Amino acid sequence: MTIKTGKEYVESLRKRKIQVHLLGEKVENPVDHPIIRPSINSVAETYDVANDPKYEDLATAISHVTGERVNRFTHIHQSTQDLVKKVKLLRLLGQKTGICFQRCVGMDSLNALSCVTFDMDQKLGTEYYKRFVEFLRYVQMNDLVCCGAMTDPKGDRSLKPSEQADPDLYLRIVGRRDDGIVVRGSKVHQTGAVNSHEVIVMPTRTLRKGDRDYAVSFAIPSDTEGLIYIYGRQSCDLRKLEGMEIDLGNARYSGQEAMIIFDDVLVPWERVFMAEEYEFAWPLVNTFSAYHRQSYGGCKAGVGDVLIGATATIAEYNGVAEASHVRDKIVEMNHLNETLYACGLACSTEGHKTPSGTYLVNILLSNICKHNVTRFPYEIVRLAQDIAGGLMTTLPSEKDFENPETKKYVIKYLKGEKEIPTESRLRILRLIENISFGLGAVGYQVESMHGAGSPQAQRIMIEREVNIESKKKLAKSLAGIER
Amino acid sequence: MTIKTGKEYVESLRKRKIQVHLLGEKVENPVDHPIIRPSINSVAETYDVANDPKYEDLATAISHVTGERVNRFTHIHQSTQDLVKKVKLLRLLGQKTGICFQRCVGMDSLNALSCVTFDMDQKLGTEYYKRFVEFLRYVQMNDLVCCGAMTDPKGDRSLKPSEQADPDLYLRIVGRRDDGIVVRGSKVHQTGAVNSHEVIVMPTRTLRKGDRDYAVSFAIPSDTEGLIYIYGRQSCDLRKLEGMEIDLGNARYSGQEAMIIFDDVLVPWERVFMAEEYEFAWPLVNTFSAYHRQSYGGCKAGVGDVLIGATATIAEYNGVAEASHVRDKIVEMNHLNETLYACGLACSTEGHKTPSGTYLVNILLSNICKHNVTRFPYEIVRLAQDIAGGLMTTLPSEKDFENPETKKYVIKYLKGEKEIPTESRLRILRLIENISFGLGAVGYQVESMHGAGSPQAQRIMIEREVNIESKKKLAKSLAGIER
Amino acid sequence: MTIKTGKEYVESLRKRKIQVHLLGEKVENPVDHPIIRPSINSVAETYDVANDPKYEDLATAISHVTGERVNRFTHIHQSTQDLVKKVKLLRLLGQKTGICFQRCVGMDSLNALSCVTFDMDQKLGTEYYKRFVEFLRYVQMNDLVCCGAMTDPKGDRSLKPSEQADPDLYLRIVGRRDDGIVVRGSKVHQTGAVNSHEVIVMPTRTLRKGDRDYAVSFAIPSDTEGLIYIYGRQSCDLRKLEGMEIDLGNARYSGQEAMIIFDDVLVPWERVFMAEEYEFAWPLVNTFSAYHRQSYGGCKAGVGDVLIGATATIAEYNGVAEASHVRDKIVEMNHLNETLYACGLACSTEGHKTPSGTYLVNILLSNICKHNVTRFPYEIVRLAQDIAGGLMTTLPSEKDFENPETKKYVIKYLKGEKEIPTESRLRILRLIENISFGLGAVGYQVESMHGAGSPQAQRIMIEREVNIESKKKLAKSLAGIER
Amino acid sequence: MTIKTGKEYVESLRKRKIQVHLLGEKVENPVDHPIIRPSINSVAETYDVANDPKYEDLATAISHVTGERVNRFTHIHQSTQDLVKKVKLLRLLGQKTGICFQRCVGMDSLNALSCVTFDMDQKLGTEYYKRFVEFLRYVQMNDLVCCGAMTDPKGDRSLKPSEQADPDLYLRIVGRRDDGIVVRGSKVHQTGAVNSHEVIVMPTRTLRKGDRDYAVSFAIPSDTEGLIYIYGRQSCDLRKLEGMEIDLGNARYSGQEAMIIFDDVLVPWERVFMAEEYEFAWPLVNTFSAYHRQSYGGCKAGVGDVLIGATATIAEYNGVAEASHVRDKIVEMNHLNETLYACGLACSTEGHKTPSGTYLVNILLSNICKHNVTRFPYEIVRLAQDIAGGLMTTLPSEKDFENPETKKYVIKYLKGEKEIPTESRLRILRLIENISFGLGAVGYQVESMHGAGSPQAQRIMIEREVNIESKKKLAKSLAGIER
Repeated sequence: MTIKTGKEYVESLRKRKIQVHLLGEKVENPVDHPIIRPSINSVAETYDVANDPKYEDLATAISHVTGERVNRFTHIHQSTQDLVKKVKLLRLLGQKTGICFQRCVGMDSLNALSCVTFDMDQKLGTEYYKRFVEFLRYVQMNDLVCCGAMTDPKGDRSLKPSEQADPDLYLRIVGRRDDGIVVRGSKVHQTGAVNSHEVIVMPTRTLRKGDRDYAVSFAIPSDTEGLIYIYGRQSCDLRKLEGMEIDLGNARYSGQEAMIIFDDVLVPWERVFMAEEYEFAWPLVNTFSAYHRQSYGGCKAGVGDVLIGATATIAEYNGVAEASHVRDKIVEMNHLNETLYACGLACSTEGHKTPSGTYLVNILLSNICKHNVTRFPYEIVRLAQDIAGGLMTTLPSEKDFENPETKKYVIKYLKGEKEIPTESRLRILRLIENISFGLGAVGYQVESMHGAGSPQAQRIMIEREVNIESKKKLAKSLAGIER
Repeated sequence: MTIKTGKEYVESLRKRKIQVHLLGEKVENPVDHPIIRPSINSVAETYDVANDPKYEDLATAISHVTGERVNRFTHIHQSTQDLVKKVKLLRLLGQKTGICFQRCVGMDSLNALSCVTFDMDQKLGTEYYKRFVEFLRYVQMNDLVCCGAMTDPKGDRSLKPSEQADPDLYLRIVGRRDDGIVVRGSKVHQTGAVNSHEVIVMPTRTLRKGDRDYAVSFAIPSDTEGLIYIYGRQSCDLRKLEGMEIDLGNARYSGQEAMIIFDDVLVPWERVFMAEEYEFAWPLVNTFSAYHRQSYGGCKAGVGDVLIGATATIAEYNGVAEASHVRDKIVEMNHLNETLYACGLACSTEGHKTPSGTYLVNILLSNICKHNVTRFPYEIVRLAQDIAGGLMTTLPSEKDFENPETKKYVIKYLKGEKEIPTESRLRILRLIENISFGLGAVGYQVESMHGAGSPQAQRIMIEREVNIESKKKLAKSLAGIER
Repeated sequence: MTIKTGKEYVESLRKRKIQVHLLGEKVENPVDHPIIRPSINSVAETYDVANDPKYEDLATAISHVTGERVNRFTHIHQSTQDLVKKVKLLRLLGQKTGICFQRCVGMDSLNALSCVTFDMDQKLGTEYYKRFVEFLRYVQMNDLVCCGAMTDPKGDRSLKPSEQADPDLYLRIVGRRDDGIVVRGSKVHQTGAVNSHEVIVMPTRTLRKGDRDYAVSFAIPSDTEGLIYIYGRQSCDLRKLEGMEIDLGNARYSGQEAMIIFDDVLVPWERVFMAEEYEFAWPLVNTFSAYHRQSYGGCKAGVGDVLIGATATIAEYNGVAEASHVRDKIVEMNHLNETLYACGLACSTEGHKTPSGTYLVNILLSNICKHNVTRFPYEIVRLAQDIAGGLMTTLPSEKDFENPETKKYVIKYLKGEKEIPTESRLRILRLIENISFGLGAVGYQVESMHGAGSPQAQRIMIEREVNIESKKKLAKSLAGIER
Repeated sequence: MTIKTGKEYVESLRKRKIQVHLLGEKVENPVDHPIIRPSINSVAETYDVANDPKYEDLATAISHVTGERVNRFTHIHQSTQDLVKKVKLLRLLGQKTGICFQRCVGMDSLNALSCVTFDMDQKLGTEYYKRFVEFLRYVQMNDLVCCGAMTDPKGDRSLKPSEQADPDLYLRIVGRRDDGIVVRGSKVHQTGAVNSHEVIVMPTRTLRKGDRDYAVSFAIPSDTEGLIYIYGRQSCDLRKLEGMEIDLGNARYSGQEAMIIFDDVLVPWERVFMAEEYEFAWPLVNTFSAYHRQSYGGCKAGVGDVLIGATATIAEYNGVAEASHVRDKIVEMNHLNETLYACGLACSTEGHKTPSGTYLVNILLSNICKHNVTRFPYEIVRLAQDIAGGLMTTLPSEKDFENPETKKYVIKYLKGEKEIPTESRLRILRLIENISFGLGAVGYQVESMHGAGSPQAQRIMIEREVNIESKKKLAKSLAGIER
């Protein structure tokens, strides 16, 4: 089943028997469903770049397990250079797809499990790391896409898992058998879930003794019996059903979010990486989050590049590329975008080797990185809208552009700079609309806000990771305060 | 034809023979088209509030022309109190509809014409003001909706109207006849155009001698022969065709943008308010803009109230209403929203009487008002998304909520605080999605950015209106600089 | 003792026997002390504008008590117009002095007492309002400067007054006698205290039963026995002792902060306005704060005008006045400054009549006003520094400019635009330094931050004053949520 | 003359015959002048850390010229690790001094000359690099402090050097002799100039053919005949003359700015690194700026640590350390501060080897770094002032704290949390004042704004360095635009 190309990846998905629901219907063939397919195309790019000799260094790596060259998305970081290359690879893919390509969450899950299962075995004498390495070998050899399933529905957020009115609002172990454990619950906001081969489940928060059943981590094939996917609808998703192209803005690529239901699913023991060790829930969450908060310094900078490029293009089409305020706003967009990237790089080069040998990012700086990501893309979008002009949201539809009764008016009156076909102007405006309000907005805005943890999660980590006592000492020393 | 209620207004629209294109098709019955109707409902609210005794003082006024009580949207401001009441009325309607209710642009056009046609007659000896007052009387007596059509397509923005490759890229006079003038061109971004009885055309920029044919203002019925409307598609418009309700977020109300084509339309002389007097183009643009920039301090604060309320509601549903960071963010949203309102009020109370007797807002402060509107709603939306959580964009569709195969999972797993039905949570999240990315985003974001002029237009006016020389004098005096 | 002019005001101060300490010494003659005198000059301007016929309408008013024309700083607001005129008067004086002119706090104290003592008498049957009116009459007839003393030292802010290790950390009643009460404690951050004729004391926070002794308000002459003033040192205060002028930036005017010690001071009953009525402590604090938060929308906009003017001047002197980024930054400074003013106006026009007949500002909007003041002046200063260039902090001293050995070099090498004398450039840079870092920074920055309550105080009030439940209803109604 | 310790450094300064003017007087003994000495102490720290074994790796390096261990401030970067260590060293010194320690500008000058003189020799066949290496060897072996003198007075900034009314407003060659060149002019804003052994002169901008005489670079001893230093006065400088300690905030350390006059100074040929090669002026400016913009990501983060520590301390002293808004603001301060550091690191690790073998930072990212530095310190200061409270600017002087008449009141009433001596509270507030408005504000604010180029200089570089065409291609490709 070794996958090499994007095309092979797409074919591999057909072999799954996966239960997907979308817009009130069960989807028999997700691969060719017009709403789903663009999201598959995005993942397929993660294969294609790995086959492009130009990107070999970024998109592949030598596995420390097999000694073979593998897709970097399945690789365990062996150095800070690996961490840096990850960020650069994600920026590249953000540039190529203009959207979330969904495969980082699996990479980040693998790396987090690599660190934490090792520590568990060291401390508890378990054999989780051994199991994990076997699973990793399988993933690497077959070049699989893993969905990293962390976020539980959470119900009333002021309550702990075991305090919820419905105990299933956090995924939990409901049965233990000789051949494995039985789990029930749901994972929500699952990026790329329907496009995955494997689902890696992890807990979503600090757990205490009373929450023991919620301390569970494992990996299962995405078409395991009992798994049900309900597709998350997105802004403008129905445009994909129109059979048109321009109005999509980004017709080839999109993202994907789904909720996964675990309806009493059996997980065989060899795929269980945590079961009841509640004191390791937080280390796993924290390690995964650190890796995933790094990711955003790459991918979102890549999407930012697309939006900046689109904005510079429409400025040109509108004949205002040289206006000083337009140039200044594009500088500002770039400034903000590169700041995100700089933070992604810094938390990588400041990474360190964990006991497992896996390299982990600098946790403080990766939280700084992500926290900026919860702000700057919004301002970049605002500036893009400023320069694009209102036309983006008053444009007639592509069908009106095709309709002979109206086509002539649209072509005539929506013409900008005289050398540019009206159609090009429509296309670039629709791309800006896509990232501002449409299918791309989910990836570029909401995911920037909430992916890998909401802003407040980062603030809590920044408070914890900063050594405030040492800073107080510096100040007191300069102020001449003895104690 | 006097209209009294929202219902009568809707009926009045049926009598028009209006040529509307939407999604590639000619719309035979715009009034009942599921995409168009919610935008009509918004306008209808401007009638219903005028019939509610509770709002009589805000929503109606005594006409200085007829002495009769008229809908404030047709009223010419007779005092700064009138200007203040306008802002309060717009905030009220923003609160009631959560969207653009489309009728301010007509009010602002009437008031601007009232000032400028008077000045033209004074200076040029024309009779435009007299014609205008006749038109106004007709509008007031019949309580009509006017579309204020200012923005031309503009083509290459670095070129003047007469320099464009296609001379029609700004609307212009192409013929003069005994019975009127013939005009050709287009007006774009026309808010509420399809829901109007009358279209008031004005030039869109400063004009010079060579652009004489572009200096044209007039009013014609919206179903005049030669007028063609092409409906602007908006984010998530297709959801209105699903026949569902929840996923719309705001099912009853929406906004409307359209482009209007003037295919050699005849305008009778009695409806012409400017023809070739290019030196009055800028005063008209400037006066209209001042009024319209004031408007945003009302309506957008009203929509802000809705979004703040939705955010406070989802915080409660998620069980986090008491979290200090959540409370703090809601304070920030309110702070920004009230700042907009404060600016709307201040430019009103600092208004003054023009030679025509019509009260005009303070131009500097109305530009300050609008300029803040190009910023704060974006930050308010960002904070709303922060508090709402990612669920807003990963929610299954309403159809999945209805589908018996998936309904139980959605209800079970998307439950928040235990007393709140899951459906309520879905509904409020969809409303936040609506204003963030969907149909409401056009009104609350893009319109806030570009309506009544883009940010740079306000910056130019701020530079002009501020007396920088007097400030330099203050500084020099304190610094002891003689000259 | 009726004072008419600034000059008479200055003379009136000489008659006091006031105990002032400054830089480790007792000041025998505060009026002519070079550090103190410029702050007196600022207050004197409040007299001089009242004598300038040009400003009669702004700077004076007809007393509702005496029917005579009085200085507006002693007037009780009889209408929203009065509230608006206050804001305009403060802007004017900010423009004239470029600093805090110290007299608003007394005006705001008088107005707050006017509202609250009336309510106390209504509810409690006391005669505080009567006493207050007598005091007011005296102030108005003699045109006195009142210091409004509210802020206690507070000690450990996590503790209530009666819980402090030292019970005197909030001013309190320590004795009750036939002829009056005896008070002990301190009031800190007392703007203009040393330049006042009367000190009006008010409590600083909500008080409960156990804090009864802290519920005290009264007015006493500033040279009452037992009152001790310790002058607050400010950035660059020593420059006033150099005997030079240019390096002060603003040589004529400065502000003043002092702490007042009440060393068992006797207050006669006819001057007591609250004694133990702890439930009225919060209304008094809240009413005073509302008025005082309004004030900042005037005075700081006036100082902002000076700083903007200075920035435009240095841009011209540097030869960069036409650079697009410079013009854009000056627009931004103006935009922010006018937003402050707009908020000051809006809370005034939305004011209302209280039971006492005194007009009170809109409390929500006055908090909005002040909250913006805690932000925008800092950004205005940052932009001023951007445009001014680093020279402001690398300039040689005025003495080096005078010293023949160095004068030629300073004149030669610090010349900017060729028509402008080097000295003018030095002067304007020193003015910008004054407001950025020097004597003016206290007034324009720290006072903007903390005067009339710190930012968090406004956030608490915004949360309280906004009707969040009504906003939730609006949102639920649009979302179709029944309850 | 090899210097090893801070103490030896201080002694070495005594040997110079340097002409310094300050406050209108010629300073005979700069080393012990109370205004100057604290700035010398700051530089001395750059020696002491190099002698501390704990910091050997950061503060020293092996010279590629001599093979000996040298102070990193004299080292030429041989790897990206060197670039990273530089940033970390600067942060350390910022933490230790709380101010500008003045020695980076020399380090950055040396590295820039290392790159550019090499390129000049390659292209022009000159021997500047050889001369430079000799000079470098001398600096390294003697561990000297170099002043990097780039900024000319510039006069009217809209004019080129040769267009100025006075041709000396940019430093230029006025004579060529057998033994060297004669130069005239001035360099302003010279950080640490009076504390230096050598002055390295470089041009300040792009030069064209007609500006040939202005293309000049060289190094001379700081006490060369004809060099005159006029000390820049700073906010609160006079407090250093009071003979007190607390009120200084940071009594031990300060920064230094001066203007240097070159009164027809002879520069021997072996110390000339550029003479008339105007086409290399820009490369030298650009390379120096890139290095120097990187520096700020280190040193200002270090000063930020001090200010954050001071703020956390005062919060504790005030009894509000646990208030949620206070904690949140301290998180924000840290977030901004770490973002600066991240950018400093990223431009270092993304550095590259130049033809000379010297490693240069990534130019785009170093501009991003500095550009953030022109913003975030101001917001950090604003937040510090928010938490500190107004007391910082209303505090009595240290002399009042000593004066027995007032001491008891100050101690009693300015006490905060009961375990903390009042003096500690005064001290920490004075430190915050120092960085907000006093001597530290020059280093932390104005230098952050203008050092290494004003914000607009970075924006120009960001525009140049970003590959906007490639971004446009990305956007067009996704939008389906062919060309």
